[in-house]
Amino acid sequence: MNRTIAKLAAVILSLVGPLARAQDPIPSWNDGATKKSITDFVAKVTKEGSPDFVKPSERIAVFDNDGTLWAEQPMYFQLAFALDRVKALAPQHPEWKECEPFKSVLAGDVKAALAGGEKAILAIIAATHSGMTTEEFEEAVKQWIATARHPVTGRPYTEMIYQPMRELLDYLRASGFKTYIVSGGGVEFMRPWVEAAYGIPPEQVVGSSVKTKFEMRGGVPVLVKLPELGSLDDGPGKPVNINLHIGRRPVMAFGNSDGDLRMLQWTAAGKGSRFCLIVHHTDAQREYAYDRESHIGKLDKALDEAKTRTWTIVDMKTDWIAIYPPAPVPGR
Amino acid sequence: MNRTIAKLAAVILSLVGPLARAQDPIPSWNDGATKKSITDFVAKVTKEGSPDFVKPSERIAVFDNDGTLWAEQPMYFQLAFALDRVKALAPQHPEWKECEPFKSVLAGDVKAALAGGEKAILAIIAATHSGMTTEEFEEAVKQWIATARHPVTGRPYTEMIYQPMRELLDYLRASGFKTYIVSGGGVEFMRPWVEAAYGIPPEQVVGSSVKTKFEMRGGVPVLVKLPELGSLDDGPGKPVNINLHIGRRPVMAFGNSDGDLRMLQWTAAGKGSRFCLIVHHTDAQREYAYDRESHIGKLDKALDEAKTRTWTIVDMKTDWIAIYPPAPVPGR
Repeated sequence: MNRTIAKLAAVILSLVGPLARAQDPIPSWNDGATKKSITDFVAKVTKEGSPDFVKPSERIAVFDNDGTLWAEQPMYFQLAFALDRVKALAPQHPEWKECEPFKSVLAGDVKAALAGGEKAILAIIAATHSGMTTEEFEEAVKQWIATARHPVTGRPYTEMIYQPMRELLDYLRASGFKTYIVSGGGVEFMRPWVEAAYGIPPEQVVGSSVKTKFEMRGGVPVLVKLPELGSLDDGPGKPVNINLHIGRRPVMAFGNSDGDLRMLQWTAAGKGSRFCLIVHHTDAQREYAYDRESHIGKLDKALDEAKTRTWTIVDMKTDWIAIYPPAPVPGR
Repeated sequence: MNRTIAKLAAVILSLVGPLARAQDPIPSWNDGATKKSITDFVAKVTKEGSPDFVKPSERIAVFDNDGTLWAEQPMYFQLAFALDRVKALAPQHPEWKECEPFKSVLAGDVKAALAGGEKAILAIIAATHSGMTTEEFEEAVKQWIATARHPVTGRPYTEMIYQPMRELLDYLRASGFKTYIVSGGGVEFMRPWVEAAYGIPPEQVVGSSVKTKFEMRGGVPVLVKLPELGSLDDGPGKPVNINLHIGRRPVMAFGNSDGDLRMLQWTAAGKGSRFCLIVHHTDAQREYAYDRESHIGKLDKALDEAKTRTWTIVDMKTDWIAIYPPAPVPGR
C-alpha cells in the first residue's frame, strides 16, 4: 500500500511538475532565494497602488552582455571574430605576414599574438573594425555569427547564450520593462544578431564604438568606421552612456564583473525601488568557474559590494537548471 | 427655394465639416498635395501585402526639433535658456560683471553679447551647461521651461510647438512608427519636456551633448557635465548619431534646414520606401518667413535638393491651418 501511494505520488508529481513549470515564467531558474528575489521585485513594482509601483514608462532594465547574457570564455567572442577577420582580410594585407600581431594570428598562434597585450589587441581591433563602411561591417558580422563555432562546445555563438537570462528578458518584457544591453562589446558587433538571440532591438543596444565619418561615395551617403575610439562602454563609461543614450536611470541592472560595478551603483542610487544582480560564474562543469583572479570578466570589488549591499548574486551552479538553450533538433 | 437650399447646404456642411475633421488624423493640415503625400506614404507602408510594406519594427521616423517641431525665432530657445541661466548664476560669479560676453548679457544687451560670435556663444554655453551634475541641470531646465515666456508671443515655449507636427507625431505612432528627435539642440535640454510636449520619451531623443564624468560624491554616484563637446548633432553628425543611437536607418525624416540635409540624404538612400519632408517657413504673419539668407535655420542647399528629388516641402502659409496649439483656457 505504501509503495502504491509512493508510486502514485511520483506519478502525480511527474504530471504536476511540468505543469507548474509551464506556468513559471522563468522555468530554468531553480526555486530559491535568488529566483524569489527577482519575482518578488517584479511583483511589487508592477502592482498598481503598491508603494513600490513603478509606472511602465520608467521600467528600464539594463543588461551587460559578455558573461551576463552569453558566455565570454575562453576569450571574448568579439575577439574570436576579430581574429577570424584577420584571416579573412589577410589576402588584402600581404604585409601582415611579417608584422606582429598579425603574423602570429595568421600562424594560428593566438597566445603569441596576444602576448603584445593591449597594444596588440588594439591593433587587431583597429584593423578589423575600421576602414570599412558600417554596412560592410554589418555584413561581416552577420556572416561570421552564422558560421563560426565556439572552440570548446562546437556550437554557434548564438547558442552560447544563457537560457535562464533569455527567459528573464522575456519575463521582464511581459512585465512592462524595456530591456537594454549596455555592454563593453562593440555596439555594431552586437546589433546584427541580438534581436534574434534576445528579443532586444538594435535601438536598445548600447556598447563601445569607434567614431564614424559621413561621406558621399558616387552620390551615395555612407558612414565609414574610423580607427579611433568613440566610446569605451565599460566601468564609468556605462552610467555615462546610459545617461547619454537612454536618459532615464534604470530600475533593474544585471552584470557579472567589476566592469559593471559603476552601472550597478548608478542604478541602485536612484530613488524608489531598484534591483541589482550579479551573475557569478561558479559552474566549472557546465560552464566556467572564475571571479577574483580572472583576466576575463574579473569579479572582485563588485562581488564584495554585492554582498555588503545584499544585491542578488546568482550562483550559476545551484541557481540555474540549464545554462544554454537546448540544442536545436537537426533538420528543424 | 434656392435660398432655402443654400441655407440647408450650409447647415449640412457646418455639421459635416467638424465630423470629417474629427476623423482626420492630422486635421491642422489643409487638404492638398503636401498632406496627401504623407497620408499616401503611411497608407502604402502600413498595408500588409503591399510591395511597399515596412514591418513595424523597421518603422523609424526622425524629426529635427528647432524649426521643425517648434519655433526657433527670434533666437534658438536653448540660447534664451542659456542667457537666462547667466542671470540666474550671476550672484555666484561676481567676475562676470567685468567680463564679456557675460557683462553684456547681464546688462540686457543680447546683441552686444553675441557680437563675439561663436566664441561668445561657446563661453555662454560652457558656463551654463557644464560644471553641474546632470540632475542639477535637469532641474534648471524644468524650472525654466515651466516659467519662461517667448519674447514675441508671450507664451510658454512648450506652446510654441507646431500643432500640425504634434498631430503628425500622434498619427505616425498610431501607424506603428517609433518617433525620434534628432536635433542640434542639447539632448539634456530637450529630455525634461519633450515627453509632455510631443509624446516622445527621453530614450528616443538624440541631440548634441557635452561629455560627462562619473564621480562618487560622499558615496553617491553622480555624473558631472564637463565643458567639453561630446557630440555636435548637426549636419553629418545627424546620420552618425542615428547610426550610433538607433542603429536602424529611418524610413521617414523631417527637417527644416541645411543642417538636416545629411539626415535626409541618409534616410532617402535606404532600400525600399523612404519619405523626406522639409518644413519651409513661409508665413511671416502667423510665424516667420525665412530660408536661404537666414542665420538661424538656413535653408538653401536642402531646399534645392528637396525640389530636385521631389521630397515633400511644407509651405507653412498654405499647408497649415494652425501653427501653434490653441491657447489653454485660463484656469483649466
